[in-house]
Amino acid sequence: MTSRSAVIEFPEDQLVLNAFLGGRMQLWQPKKGYRAGVDPVLLAASVPAISGQTVLDLGCGAGAAALCLATRVPGLDCVGVERQPEFAALAQRNGAQNGLPFHVICADLAAPPPDLTARQFDHVLANPPYFVEGAHSPSPDAAKGAARGEDTPLSIWLDIAARRLRSGGYFHMIQRIDRLPEALASCRLGSVEVLPLAPRIGRDPGLFILRARKGGRAAFRLRAPLILHKGATHARDGEDYTDEILSVLRGNAPLKWADCRGV
Amino acid sequence: MTSRSAVIEFPEDQLVLNAFLGGRMQLWQPKKGYRAGVDPVLLAASVPAISGQTVLDLGCGAGAAALCLATRVPGLDCVGVERQPEFAALAQRNGAQNGLPFHVICADLAAPPPDLTARQFDHVLANPPYFVEGAHSPSPDAAKGAARGEDTPLSIWLDIAARRLRSGGYFHMIQRIDRLPEALASCRLGSVEVLPLAPRIGRDPGLFILRARKGGRAAFRLRAPLILHKGATHARDGEDYTDEILSVLRGNAPLKWADCRGV
Repeated sequence: MTSRSAVIEFPEDQLVLNAFLGGRMQLWQPKKGYRAGVDPVLLAASVPAISGQTVLDLGCGAGAAALCLATRVPGLDCVGVERQPEFAALAQRNGAQNGLPFHVICADLAAPPPDLTARQFDHVLANPPYFVEGAHSPSPDAAKGAARGEDTPLSIWLDIAARRLRSGGYFHMIQRIDRLPEALASCRLGSVEVLPLAPRIGRDPGLFILRARKGGRAAFRLRAPLILHKGATHARDGEDYTDEILSVLRGNAPLKWADCRGV
Repeated sequence: MTSRSAVIEFPEDQLVLNAFLGGRMQLWQPKKGYRAGVDPVLLAASVPAISGQTVLDLGCGAGAAALCLATRVPGLDCVGVERQPEFAALAQRNGAQNGLPFHVICADLAAPPPDLTARQFDHVLANPPYFVEGAHSPSPDAAKGAARGEDTPLSIWLDIAARRLRSGGYFHMIQRIDRLPEALASCRLGSVEVLPLAPRIGRDPGLFILRARKGGRAAFRLRAPLILHKGATHARDGEDYTDEILSVLRGNAPLKWADCRGV
């Protein structure tokens, strides 16, 4: 891990080892506060990376998105940026835990260090926190509050993505649907596509994945929603994912952005 | 009809009378060039207007959207603005044809006359042309070219809508999905919701209806897509609409923007 300050780590007894991708990837995460779940897995599954390419995970947290992607696609060169030192240390440890090449830089996205600004990447990923400053009560837990994005506007994520992508490179971001207008307004990349994620068929989507390409010139596309759960009601928590979602979460499958989905 | 120039009309033998809403509304339209079809009907069906309210239809063409709405909701006071004199005259005639109160102003949206800028409305509708300047070959037919929107940017439609709405009033616009980012970026109204219109279940939406409210403060919402046709393949042109769409097109029903659609 690259950092200009001493390494700050979570106490060992506050960590838990979670399995992702049907046990193919294991992630140390703090027991309390924000823990990666389904969202970074779906984000990583959307990325059309191939062996030998470079990947930058912005605000990587414990490293879930980058390490899911590196598990599915062997031979990637992955870099993470994380502002919180204890998460940056955890992400670096999680790379080693899975035997995956993952270099984590501890830095604020608003002030990226020279070892980051000197590079360009084939893919940039971002799973920015879902809460907007002022839209909720401040968290008493500083780390939890920072993970909720109380202080980094979405435009900063999109700006650094545009700068760090090589021409033709892809950006993928997952975010809450209420921030779609803000994301589109801040996006200077081309060939923008939005994949809404809906809890069930016929229900309004709560999240979206944005895909864009540096220098892309294709018209904007809105995709048919990706449906997360089967049926019209919530049978049992987390046990009723659609076959497509299960194949991603447990089977390590890529997520297809096809025009005709699941029919 | 209000106009500062002599009335220019389509020759009678170039017109055809089309039935809308199961025959409840009849519309004279030119035989050649742009003719209103399903889109203005769906637009009008989305508007939560009640008797006694005022409605402004921007770029009303032959008057399809305003007259569909006035047919479903009795007692509306409807005004249309149309730049092309022959369409403005046709829209005025179509109001009379259906015995509906419809006052049409022949004017350019970029330069609205005082009898328009003096008023505010409970509802503003817009079905802006679907083609962007420079994205296709210029039409040899001037009226057809103008109907394709070769010269009025979307921001002008959204700007006049914001100005002409009373506080709390609703704006509804139907447009091609590739212009969603432009529409969202130009929209100064609040409580924005987007209803995508998809040809079939699982297919990418090709159109959207945008709803916004002057002074609204609700978070942005993307709705589950409204599905136009039954099944996965195109059985017969125009004969396989879903029951929900048929109830709007033939039955004069409103379009419900519910969170749980058609399940």
